[in-house]
Amino acid sequence: MELDVFRKQAHQMVDWMADYLENVSQYPVSPDVVPGQIRASIPARAPEQAEPFEQIFADFEQAILPGMTHWQHPSFFGYFPANSSPPSVLAEMLTATLGAQCMSWLTSPAATELEQRMMEWLRDLLALPANWTGVIQDTASTATFCALLSARERATAGRGNLQGLHGQPRFTVYCSSEAHSSIEKAMRMAGLGSENLRKIDVDQAFAMVPSELSLQIHRDREEGLTPLCVVAAFGTTGSTAIDPLGPLAQVCQRENLWLHVDAAFAGSALILPEMRIWAEGLERADSFVFNPHKWLMTNFDCSAYYVKEPQTLLDTFALTPEYLKTAQDDQVYNYRDWGPQLGRRFRALKLWFVLRSYGAEGLRQIIRQHLEWAQDLASQIQAAPDFELLAPVTFNTLCFRYLSPQDADLDRVNQTLLQSLNASGEMFMTHTRLKGVYVLRWVLGQTRLEQRHIAAAWEKIQATARAL
Amino acid sequence: MELDVFRKQAHQMVDWMADYLENVSQYPVSPDVVPGQIRASIPARAPEQAEPFEQIFADFEQAILPGMTHWQHPSFFGYFPANSSPPSVLAEMLTATLGAQCMSWLTSPAATELEQRMMEWLRDLLALPANWTGVIQDTASTATFCALLSARERATAGRGNLQGLHGQPRFTVYCSSEAHSSIEKAMRMAGLGSENLRKIDVDQAFAMVPSELSLQIHRDREEGLTPLCVVAAFGTTGSTAIDPLGPLAQVCQRENLWLHVDAAFAGSALILPEMRIWAEGLERADSFVFNPHKWLMTNFDCSAYYVKEPQTLLDTFALTPEYLKTAQDDQVYNYRDWGPQLGRRFRALKLWFVLRSYGAEGLRQIIRQHLEWAQDLASQIQAAPDFELLAPVTFNTLCFRYLSPQDADLDRVNQTLLQSLNASGEMFMTHTRLKGVYVLRWVLGQTRLEQRHIAAAWEKIQATARAL
Repeated sequence: MELDVFRKQAHQMVDWMADYLENVSQYPVSPDVVPGQIRASIPARAPEQAEPFEQIFADFEQAILPGMTHWQHPSFFGYFPANSSPPSVLAEMLTATLGAQCMSWLTSPAATELEQRMMEWLRDLLALPANWTGVIQDTASTATFCALLSARERATAGRGNLQGLHGQPRFTVYCSSEAHSSIEKAMRMAGLGSENLRKIDVDQAFAMVPSELSLQIHRDREEGLTPLCVVAAFGTTGSTAIDPLGPLAQVCQRENLWLHVDAAFAGSALILPEMRIWAEGLERADSFVFNPHKWLMTNFDCSAYYVKEPQTLLDTFALTPEYLKTAQDDQVYNYRDWGPQLGRRFRALKLWFVLRSYGAEGLRQIIRQHLEWAQDLASQIQAAPDFELLAPVTFNTLCFRYLSPQDADLDRVNQTLLQSLNASGEMFMTHTRLKGVYVLRWVLGQTRLEQRHIAAAWEKIQATARAL
Repeated sequence: MELDVFRKQAHQMVDWMADYLENVSQYPVSPDVVPGQIRASIPARAPEQAEPFEQIFADFEQAILPGMTHWQHPSFFGYFPANSSPPSVLAEMLTATLGAQCMSWLTSPAATELEQRMMEWLRDLLALPANWTGVIQDTASTATFCALLSARERATAGRGNLQGLHGQPRFTVYCSSEAHSSIEKAMRMAGLGSENLRKIDVDQAFAMVPSELSLQIHRDREEGLTPLCVVAAFGTTGSTAIDPLGPLAQVCQRENLWLHVDAAFAGSALILPEMRIWAEGLERADSFVFNPHKWLMTNFDCSAYYVKEPQTLLDTFALTPEYLKTAQDDQVYNYRDWGPQLGRRFRALKLWFVLRSYGAEGLRQIIRQHLEWAQDLASQIQAAPDFELLAPVTFNTLCFRYLSPQDADLDRVNQTLLQSLNASGEMFMTHTRLKGVYVLRWVLGQTRLEQRHIAAAWEKIQATARAL
């Protein structure tokens, strides 16, 4: 494609993009397609000859767009949001154009140093300890994996990485029964084994019970196992429950365990001073992750991983083959040594654009607004006689269900309700189970969310439920 | 940022992007900055109030751009290229705008099914076995890690993932002494231990010697160790040496070892029928990775990972907590179960745009041209009395050095030469060591590369060397 064609097409693309973002609320949030339908609509083989971009883009609109789930739709209430924003998209345009590989300082000094700065900005915005050091990972899954590897590195004085886990003690890791599946995945990957992940009981607010943790650690030690690490949740995926960080930090200190705090979604709320009360004890953690790509208007992927002692992370990952050596290695951060991948995109740029475009105060207003709407909605759900909330609403995730007067099988009723709501295309929600009970999760966190979207959805939910 | 502002800024951005790509050869390839300089130029704290985009972009141009290494510069000859192209950038613009999270089929059906199709397209374009299944990983580092985990899963019948490596045999993995550092990193991460990676001797062409491999496996078995996996290189990082896949496959079959083929860079050459002679035996591998984001004009990140038996990969990674369950789970690919991360960008779109915009024949022409230029340049270097080639030129990477008539310390001479060339801003090269000898690596693979860039660089190299 010649550059004059690119220029023309990119201008048309920009208009399409702006139109899309303007009209995104008019799309069905999730598509009406059946498995295999889209694949069948795409030829089985690549074309031999070049095709004009007009044709390619027409096919995008016809074959792909109707099969997308629209994560930027204001009524996307499922999972956790993967927010983007106009300044973030502008940065992604630049990032793609520069096409820089940011594995070492030398391979793009500005990318490395902007990443350092942005990690400082975020650290201070969240009032994290000033001596913590940050690095951008792709996802919280990777960050949590890094934490387990670091704990392993520290506990084995490096022998785990050098000699492998053959001959090492049987290590155990602890999280709550509500913790994220990425921890179990990390246990597998790290060779620690998913059976050695202890899922500690939670209280009525779905937070880990520290005394149960202590008990389990004690039992494991008695059986000759070696406790390694506690992964605490600041906002579980199910209900954004908060594990008691202070008491957990105390256990970790007493037992000499690594404390990793997974705040993938809810961590962004720490830009609000009034929310920091929930994070008491966080300053005693060894590592911490939160995802600006969830609730901080920054395109996926952008996961901020902080560590108290970067050396353990470096001891885990640093490797400098001859072809990667540079003259500056002793004076700079080579971020390839801070995580699993060698190759790295220039991800700090979008953070810079977002943080400056909104300003700290602008971001606080959005998050604060989401939290207020959540409290307001919680009151409405509580006030409805045939609905109930199943978990505390500390942030902006509401776990609720419909109490059908006709059908006692509430799990089935609510499953049908969810299917019906999502099939309407007017909203998209997901579910989980809390203490075995099927609940709908409603997350009020999309960039473009306004109160009217919440009001319309709540009306639709009630009408749909009562008409089941 | 309001959408009308976004529209205006994005149009200006497009002009900047097209101008940049038009003029990229006029920038110094790598910047003239010292460590810390850029970080110091960025305020220590995020702004409280929103800033106008004009100011942010002006700072980008003033503070960031002069600190970038320009990977899209035609005279970027270092490492391996991280190519982009106009259609790929257009796709990235769309991807950023849609901002879809492609972890499950349901979270964006079109993204999942387009990924399936694109993996089929690439498989057939490279003439890989028709029964192989592909998935996009972020990097080859991750793909190779997946391969080691799959080998571990198969060899332990799942117990490695379930119970951990405590109590498992001491596994050994094999690669050549020229193999990529990501293998050692993967050994650490997987809990296999870097000491259990056996680096097998290479021949004069820097390819693994199968008899040495057999010998080492035999020695390891005699010592009670358990050989697990061989990682063969189709194009090493140092000199793009090709390990003899057929003989290695035979060893793996005899010894019941997993065979992973790392073709991160050179794999793209397999779109040329005439290059497939180098890959004889590849069809017997268990897994294979190559990076369209290197030499196939597709923006980073996009690494194509193929496996013979997807079930082993799924057994390694699949985990379905309640909040991720969907009604279609039994009928679809949920790509979160195919790799380490839960979150995934919509990466198939750029492949679709690139493969259709160039057409298979268009891509073959580019790669073929690079290979021809490399042969031509190799002849020129060989013809120069004071230069020598240090490795066979099978693809488009040339390892060479200057034979100074005045200074016998050729390592130092060539180190100085490289520094001087890179400091000129007219080109960017990197180095490695082959059999202990310091060599310059010159990779002819950038999207925008033309013969005149090679000619100018070769003239500059000779003049600079002779003036040292």
